[in-house]
This record gives sequence, C-alpha cells and structure tokens, in this order.
Amino acid sequence: MSNQQIKAGIIGGAGYTGGEMIRLLINHPNVTLTFVHSRSNAGKPLHAVHADLLGETELLFADSISNDIDVLFLCLGHGESKKWLEANAIADHIKVIDLSQDFRLGETVGNRAFVYGLPEVNKEAIKQAGNIANPGCFATGIQLGLLPLAAKGLLQEVHTTGITGSTGAGQSLQATSHFTWRANNISTYKVLTHQHLKEIRRTLSALQPSFTGDINFVPVRGDFPRGIWVTSYLQSDLSLEEAVALYQQYYANHPFTHVSEKQIDLKQVVNTNKVLIQLEKVGNKLIIHSIEDNLLKGASGQAVQNMNLMFGLDETAGLKLKSIVF
Amino acid sequence: MSNQQIKAGIIGGAGYTGGEMIRLLINHPNVTLTFVHSRSNAGKPLHAVHADLLGETELLFADSISNDIDVLFLCLGHGESKKWLEANAIADHIKVIDLSQDFRLGETVGNRAFVYGLPEVNKEAIKQAGNIANPGCFATGIQLGLLPLAAKGLLQEVHTTGITGSTGAGQSLQATSHFTWRANNISTYKVLTHQHLKEIRRTLSALQPSFTGDINFVPVRGDFPRGIWVTSYLQSDLSLEEAVALYQQYYANHPFTHVSEKQIDLKQVVNTNKVLIQLEKVGNKLIIHSIEDNLLKGASGQAVQNMNLMFGLDETAGLKLKSIVF
Amino acid sequence: MSNQQIKAGIIGGAGYTGGEMIRLLINHPNVTLTFVHSRSNAGKPLHAVHADLLGETELLFADSISNDIDVLFLCLGHGESKKWLEANAIADHIKVIDLSQDFRLGETVGNRAFVYGLPEVNKEAIKQAGNIANPGCFATGIQLGLLPLAAKGLLQEVHTTGITGSTGAGQSLQATSHFTWRANNISTYKVLTHQHLKEIRRTLSALQPSFTGDINFVPVRGDFPRGIWVTSYLQSDLSLEEAVALYQQYYANHPFTHVSEKQIDLKQVVNTNKVLIQLEKVGNKLIIHSIEDNLLKGASGQAVQNMNLMFGLDETAGLKLKSIVF
Amino acid sequence: MSNQQIKAGIIGGAGYTGGEMIRLLINHPNVTLTFVHSRSNAGKPLHAVHADLLGETELLFADSISNDIDVLFLCLGHGESKKWLEANAIADHIKVIDLSQDFRLGETVGNRAFVYGLPEVNKEAIKQAGNIANPGCFATGIQLGLLPLAAKGLLQEVHTTGITGSTGAGQSLQATSHFTWRANNISTYKVLTHQHLKEIRRTLSALQPSFTGDINFVPVRGDFPRGIWVTSYLQSDLSLEEAVALYQQYYANHPFTHVSEKQIDLKQVVNTNKVLIQLEKVGNKLIIHSIEDNLLKGASGQAVQNMNLMFGLDETAGLKLKSIVF
Repeated sequence: MSNQQIKAGIIGGAGYTGGEMIRLLINHPNVTLTFVHSRSNAGKPLHAVHADLLGETELLFADSISNDIDVLFLCLGHGESKKWLEANAIADHIKVIDLSQDFRLGETVGNRAFVYGLPEVNKEAIKQAGNIANPGCFATGIQLGLLPLAAKGLLQEVHTTGITGSTGAGQSLQATSHFTWRANNISTYKVLTHQHLKEIRRTLSALQPSFTGDINFVPVRGDFPRGIWVTSYLQSDLSLEEAVALYQQYYANHPFTHVSEKQIDLKQVVNTNKVLIQLEKVGNKLIIHSIEDNLLKGASGQAVQNMNLMFGLDETAGLKLKSIVF
Repeated sequence: MSNQQIKAGIIGGAGYTGGEMIRLLINHPNVTLTFVHSRSNAGKPLHAVHADLLGETELLFADSISNDIDVLFLCLGHGESKKWLEANAIADHIKVIDLSQDFRLGETVGNRAFVYGLPEVNKEAIKQAGNIANPGCFATGIQLGLLPLAAKGLLQEVHTTGITGSTGAGQSLQATSHFTWRANNISTYKVLTHQHLKEIRRTLSALQPSFTGDINFVPVRGDFPRGIWVTSYLQSDLSLEEAVALYQQYYANHPFTHVSEKQIDLKQVVNTNKVLIQLEKVGNKLIIHSIEDNLLKGASGQAVQNMNLMFGLDETAGLKLKSIVF
Repeated sequence: MSNQQIKAGIIGGAGYTGGEMIRLLINHPNVTLTFVHSRSNAGKPLHAVHADLLGETELLFADSISNDIDVLFLCLGHGESKKWLEANAIADHIKVIDLSQDFRLGETVGNRAFVYGLPEVNKEAIKQAGNIANPGCFATGIQLGLLPLAAKGLLQEVHTTGITGSTGAGQSLQATSHFTWRANNISTYKVLTHQHLKEIRRTLSALQPSFTGDINFVPVRGDFPRGIWVTSYLQSDLSLEEAVALYQQYYANHPFTHVSEKQIDLKQVVNTNKVLIQLEKVGNKLIIHSIEDNLLKGASGQAVQNMNLMFGLDETAGLKLKSIVF
Repeated sequence: MSNQQIKAGIIGGAGYTGGEMIRLLINHPNVTLTFVHSRSNAGKPLHAVHADLLGETELLFADSISNDIDVLFLCLGHGESKKWLEANAIADHIKVIDLSQDFRLGETVGNRAFVYGLPEVNKEAIKQAGNIANPGCFATGIQLGLLPLAAKGLLQEVHTTGITGSTGAGQSLQATSHFTWRANNISTYKVLTHQHLKEIRRTLSALQPSFTGDINFVPVRGDFPRGIWVTSYLQSDLSLEEAVALYQQYYANHPFTHVSEKQIDLKQVVNTNKVLIQLEKVGNKLIIHSIEDNLLKGASGQAVQNMNLMFGLDETAGLKLKSIVF
C-alpha cells in the first residue's frame, strides 16, 4: 500500500455529494482532509450537518480555504462551480475535481481545462489531468452500459429507462421529495430531454463518430433513496455470447465495473463504487442493464477514483466499501 | 338508507385533512358538498391541489363562504380555528366540526360550546351537539385502548408507545418529512410530553376520577405515510378472558371499533375508519394494542362519523371504505 | 340507483384478487355475496385469511358451490380456471368472469365463449356477454395508453416501460417478494418477452390490422405494493394538442379513464379503479404515461366494472373508491 | 497499523450474519479469510449466494473445514452452534466466536467456556477469552442504553420499546417477511417475553445485584431492512447533565459507542458498527435512546470487534465503515 499522503479540501461540504466526499476521505488511507468549506455552516462540527459522522471526526466546517492542499473537490450546484473558480484564486498546483456539470462539455475557466472523469473511457487522460469534470450520475450508468458497443462502432438508436433514488434530487425540500408524496410512488421527469444526454452523446460520438441515432431516455423517480437502475436496448447483430465477451474484455482492466451472468438487482451495488452490467438478447435486440450507487460511482466515489488515478494511487484505494445489500 | 341530504362546507380544504374530508364527502350518500374554501387556491379546481380527484369532481375552491349549509368542517392549523370563528360570522344554525385542537379542552368561542367528538365515549352528547371538537389522532388511538378500563376504574400508570405515519405531520416541507431522510428511518419526538396527553387525561379522568397515574407516551416517527400503531401496558388483575370480555362489551355498539383475538397489524385498518384492538396478558401486565388510520378515524373519518351522529344518519354512512390492505 | 340485486359467488377467494373481489362486493349496492369458495380455508371466516375484513363480514369460506347465483368470479391461478370449468358443472344461466389468462386469446370451454373484458374497447360486446376474460394488469395499462392511436391506425413500433408493485406477483413466498430483498430495490424480468404482449397485440391488431411493429416492453419490479406505472413512446406526426384531443374524445364515455394535462404520479390512482393518462410530445416522439392500480382496474375492479355492464347497472356502481393518495 | 495476519473461517456462511462476516473480513487489513463453509452451497462461489460480492472475491464455499485457522465464526441458527461444536472436533488453539444464543447464559461445550462478547462491559475478559458468545441484536442495543446506570446501581423498573428491521428475522421466507405484507406495516411480537431479556438481565444483575425490577420490553417489527431503535425510560434522580456526564464517562474508552447531545435518528448508524445514545429528562423520568445496525454492532460487526480485542488488534480494525446515511 502506498504511503503517499494527499491533502484534500472540499468546497460545498454541506450537501449530499459533499457529505459523501467527507465520508470517503476521512477513511481514505492516503488522504488528509485539510478543510471542508461551507459558507452557511462555518464553525460548526461536520457532524452538526452530517449527523452520522458523530464519533468519527471532530473537524469543523471552515469559512476560508487554504492553498496548502493537493486536490480540491467542488461539490457545488450546477452553475456554481464555474462562478466559484472565477471568484476564488487558487494556486496553480492544486488539482480540481468538479462534481457539477459545469465543465463536462469542454468548458474551461482561466487556464484550467477539464478531462471528463469517466475512468472506463478516459483512464490515461485522467492520470495526466490537472482538472476533472466528474460525470453525472445517470450519465455514468448509461454510458457504462454502452461504451463497449460504441468502441466497436455498433451503436444504433438506443432506448433507455433509468430509475433513480431520491438522493439524486439533493437535499432541498420540494414537493417531489416529500416523504408522504414519494413513498410508494412513481413518476417521470424530463422524458427524452434529460440534460445528461449531452455528455452521454459527447462521449459516445467520440468513440463512434458515425453514431447519429437517438438516445431515447425515460428518467423515472423511484421511491428509494440511493441507486440508479438503467435498462437500455438496441438492435444488434451480436449474439449474447459475443456481447458478453465484448463487455468482459472492455472492462477487464476496470476494477469497479463487472459483467454479471446472473440477473442483477439494484442493492448489489448500493453504498459501493461498483457498477454491475447484465446482458440479455431477445430476437435482434440486445438488452443492457447497468446499476450503480448514484452518490458514489455516480458522484463522490467516482471523484475519489479519479483522484486515485491522478495521484498514481491504487485505483481502488479508499473505495473498498461494504454494500448495504439488505 | 336515509334520503336526507346535508349541505356541507369545508374551510381549509387544501391540506391533508381537508383533502380527506373532500374524498369522503363527495361519495357520501347523504351529503352535498357546497363549497371548499381555500384562500390560496380560490378559483382552481379541487384536483389542481388534490390530484387524485381528477375525474371525480369539477368543483372549484371557493374564496367566500355561504351560510346555506348545515355543517361546516374546519380543517385549519392548531390555533387557527378559534381565530377563524372569531373573525367570521356564520349563521347560528350551522353545526361546526373542528379538526384542530382548539376546543378539545372545553374552550368556547362566542356562544359555541364544543362536545369532544369521540363517539366511543360521548355518543349521546354528540347526537345533541351543535359543535364538535374532533379528537387528535394519537389521542383517539390511545383512548380507545384505555376507555373500557377507565370506565371500570381500573387504570393505573400507563406505558404507551405510538408510531405514526408521516401524514401526521402534514404537508409542509420540513427536514423530518424529506423522503431521503425519512425512508427506512426511525426517530422519536416529544417523548413523555406530547400535547395529546391533555385531552387523553381529560377523558380518562372524567371516567375514572381517581386516576392520577402517569401516562408515559413515547411518540415515534415511522417510515410509512398512513396509520398509527399504539401499544399500551399497565398492571391489571384482569385475566385475559376478563379483559377481552370487558372490551367486547364496551365496544359492542360501536361499529368501527373491534376486538381482534388474533395478532393485528397496522395495514388491517389503513384507509378505513376502523380501529382494531388486541389484548395480551403477561404476568400481571395487561397489554393493549390499538390501530387506526390517523387521517380517517384519527381525523376526517371521525369527523364524518360525528356528522352522521349529529344528523341522525347511520353512523357508518359514507364510511364503508375499502382498506388498502396491501 | 338501481335496486337490482345480483347474487355473486367467488372461486379462489383466499388470494390477492379474491380478497379484492370480496372487499368490493360486500360494499356493492347491487350485489349479494352468496359464497366465497376456498378449498384450503373452508369453514373459516373470511377475516381469518383477509384480516382487514374483521368487523365487516362474518361470512365463512365455503367448501361447495351453489347454482343459485347470477355471476361467478374465478380468481384462480393461470391454467386453473380452464381446469376448474371443465371439472365443475355450473348452471348455464350463470355468467362467468375469469380473472386468469386462460381465455384471453379466444379460448373456449364447453359452449362458453369469452369476451375480452376491456370496457374501453369492448363495451357493447361486454354488455351482451355471457362470459368475460378479464384482462391482465400490465395489459390493461399498456392498452389504455395505445387504444386511441390504434383506433386511428397510428401505431408504429412502441417502446414501453412498466413498473409494477409487488402484489402483481401474488401472495406466494419467493425470493423476489422477500421484504429484505425487495425494499429499496429494483430489478427487471421477462424483458421484451412478457406474456401479456399476446393479449395486447391481439387487441391492437384488431383495431389496426396493419400494425406489425414491435411492442418492446421492459417490465420492472418496483419496491411498493400496489400500482402500475406505464410509459410508452413511439413516432407520431400528431401534435400534442391533436393527441390530447384524440385521447379525450376516445375516452369521453369511459368513466374510469381520464386524460391529465398535468404531470401524473402513481398514487393518484392507487386503491381506485381509475386510469390516468398523460401525454407529452418531444421532437417526433409521442410519449404516453398511463397509471392504474394493478389489483383494481388491473384485476378485481375491472371485473366488477364488467359485471356492472353485463347486468345493466351503472358502470361505476360499487367502484367509487377513496384513493390512498398518501 | 498492525501487520499481524489472522486466519479466519466461517461456518454457516450463506445466511445474513454469515454474509456480513464475509463482507467485513475480506476487507479487514489483518485477516485472511481461509474458508467459508456452507453445506448447501459447497463448490459455488460466494457471490452465487451473496450477489453483491461479485467482483470482490472469487472464493468458493467449502464443504470441509481446516484446522489451520486462528479463529472460527459460527453463524448458525440458535441451537445449531452447540450441536456443531459437539459434532465437529476442532483444534484447541482455535478461538471460537459464536453468533447464536447458545452460550450467552454461561453454557459450555467440552472444555470451552464462553465470555459474553459485549466489549462495553467485558473488554478485559474478551481480550483473554478463548471463546466468545456474541450478544443478541436487541440485547446489545438495550444493554448499551442501561449499562452506565447499572454500573452505578441506579436501575429501577425499565420500560423499553425496540423497533427492528426485517433482517433481524433472517432470510427464511415467512408471512411476516413478505414484502407486500411488511411494506408500510407495523406489528409487535413477543411483547414482554422476548428471549433476549435473559442475557440482558444476566449482564445487568452482575453489575447491580440488587436490581430485581421488571424490564418491560415491547419488540416491534419495523418496515425497513436494517437497524434497531431502542427507547428506554425509568425513574431517576439524576439530572440530565449528570446522566450525560455518567454516560460520556462510561463510554469514554469505547470507540463505537457515543453520546449525542442532539436528537438522533436510526440512519446515523445503519451499515456501521456504531451505537449512538441520546438522553432526555422529563419530570423524574430519564429517557435513553440507543441505536445500532442489528447486523453489525448487533451481530457480525461486534463479532469482528471481539476478534480484534482477542488478537490484540486495534479495536476498530476493519470496522471503519461508511454509513448508508441516506
């Protein structure tokens, strides 16, 4: 195990992804969590906001930032990261990992350019990157279901259903996050228009420039807190065996993404950084199921995975997490 | 079946208990729902707020009230009912059923005095009443578990756990009603100090003036939307058979309250106006389980039951509801 | 209100659909429930099996059947209805409503032929029918989302996601119905191969003989007990306004099926016999959401609706049910 | 960090506690998991039974045991551990940690005597122990709420409510673990008679021999998979400040048990080995809330904690677990 110690800071530590960053970093063997910034909570202990941290850390939320860090995680709302980097001068040596969508389509700020932080497609670039645009939660799940096909130029029009836990909507109080409403309920939103389609298409088009078919995505609000289920299908000439072999080969060197030969269920990956993929073939349609924890592989866990790669650590350092399973 | 038609109005029709009042009254065979008042929603169809009513009624929320009604239901927040009655002149002939806690301890407004609307203890008074203070949800469940003992002077110090669904907290958005927080979660509040203890003690002391023991009540927030589970126990010399006989006799003429000889579970009564009671005896302790739907027998259903009694209708009219059961 | 009284019997009264039949029929103003047959429970009160019925009926399960009835509901497992009708002679005057899939594709038994009991496509035939094959739960929800298009010859390849509550799998104990497994979990089954596709295609092809496109159906196991959510989409030249007008017109005379102009959510219909439909248009794709309670409009409620039509009653008699809503 | 490596075996690796043992041990820095025995699954990969382990280990279930281990975990049903130890000769040097209730009351087998494995009361004895009887889940939560009082001789009659997740009932399929039944439902069982009362009283009486009051325990089945909530109250002369000080002092050297000054909720500890305690004082009653994950601190996590103590490791090794929190 590497003895390297990385100093990390977090901006926006009071939200869901900020909290998960803290939970991961305080137990990461190669990280010292230097500060967690939160404007509204400065001076309070982290466990005043993230009550589950009681007994694990006495760190307080900071109201200022330090440049004596190696990496900075931005856990801000969409649109806020760019503003923050414009307004706050941080030292050039600090690597930035941004969890918002502000830099996923090639946007830059100052002289900082961002690599799209999906290790299963961009691992070598991530290792060299100074800044990472961490992928979206749905975008991660959908792309991991399609990457091997795109890499072979086999994509056609895709039909995708994605079901997300309530944490995907953050901690703000709103009608669709009221317990009374959401318990035992199902609804959809942004059908065929979800904003993650842009970053998905950007990746897939880079792999398969000829691909112009629709990606028809039906996002569903599920009545559970954590996890994303994705089922995609498309026309394919591959046999099931060929498809399984393609996916296994594609993900052979990716420690968190695995192909299951048995039927999968969402709780296999909840509270872990893993993605499981299961394939089926019916007639001429190839069906791809892919599952993840939206806050881990879909957000903060993938951010840590990117950090590990950027600093030459074991890709899985600090990410061998016990699943909730039940 | 009676052909009598009662004209009813609702004040505060946009909340949870107001919505349940509407759902019950639009299908009640002896009621014409004349108006549903809501300051903030006047002019909108009821189904703009209560979306499940789409296809069932095209009634609009009203911004004024009519005196051409027989009964008025007040579905306002605690403290608001008294204010509303002070500020709004309504005709003397109108009977008022108030669902708040404003009149449960003997309070009056103008020349209106209120009967405590628990039919299992006050049925004859309710039939003659001009105004009803509808009991609280926890108060209903706890009292129905203790009334037969109090009527025989057998109460001693009581130990009670009550677990409530999230609808008990209303529709306002708050941290403890956020789906992400409440799903799979348990917490308590107002332990040994819940405000319903006052109306409970008032009823029990009237039945058993000698009773001065504590009623120790632990209220629990459950991770489900509807229903209240109550378990109480106390020292008792009654055998189980004697206790069952006592309870069966006490509730013999009450159509919604039944003694179960088998173990009960909450969903037996969810979405109905029923209360089920189960008794156990262990050593010298008598255990009483009682269950209800907090929004029906614990609020709007009991309000309809009171209306039925006040107007000489069958006590169960409009209240033969299909349980959700699953 | 009609004073007609129909005598009804139930075969297989111990299961989920049998229980719902009982709950509906004991409160139906025009029905006398003559017997509920259950081989394994004969002699026990109904509430020994359906515990929520305590206090509502003292009827016992029967071990024999009577021919002094007008209508017989078969609530048996798939394959069992046909066997039962072959093994048991019932009088010719008795109308049969079968909730299994045994007669949905035109099968007959003896001289009994069955009309497919989807009132929104077959109402006149149902009124004349002697026997009804009650549609499947998913089949009902999917068809109601597509009927208006098929009636106009506008169907093309359809992409459908359906999410079902656990009651759809019945009361048998199995790994996928274990609470610990299913809570907070998502999984799929029979993707693109679900058995209801046959009856769906049969109806749609009758309306639009030219339709040969695939109906791609992804069935999902949801982590809630009741209800089915269906989202379908397909290419369409209709504008949103044209589509809404088409659907409103199609369903104008159908009291349980309504078009919502606002976003819908599943709990609007849970514990009712209603179906709500919402339409969206994105690019050249028409999106159709349709929701139902799988045990009511998807099973026992639709069976009562069919009975009402067969006997000339109001189509909604006994089916004005309070939604659970919360 | 210690470099010591302990070889561990598991008997009964297919159940819930066996699965949690595997999840903890494969990531424990000081453990090599030598074998996982399961009669019914021998030869299959662990992930054939515990599907969430896919991608984490390729170990197979064993059909025989090896004596080349340092510690053996028995994850068998109650009554089965004693039988197994009688039927299987294991080397004397092997330390045994039994998760059943077979040895919690002082029972022995051969020359093996068992120390009750509750580190918060027995830490020094555990460090010296050759065999551990791991406490019950409810017993752990209830005792941790009462130990500081018992240690000071301050216990009086106790009133306790405990609400457990469904995993407490294991993975067998039964009516009360059916998803359709348990979702949104509440029920009680073994009220005032739960079997864990024996081990609780044994510990408390050892600390406070004068204590003869009742421990009135109402066990509740909750509608969530993981976790136990306990609220106890009793008469006490301690002020809140005195009680908090007493508890903080008692648990000062126990790394998993913490006193919260804020209101707690169950998900603060789910999927961790922690116990949080919160105190309240109302009148002359002291209220103690204590929460745990029933499968971790209430079973397999505590077993690892005991192993750590027995082998001189850091008590928290392998147990710094990320909470599910949401």
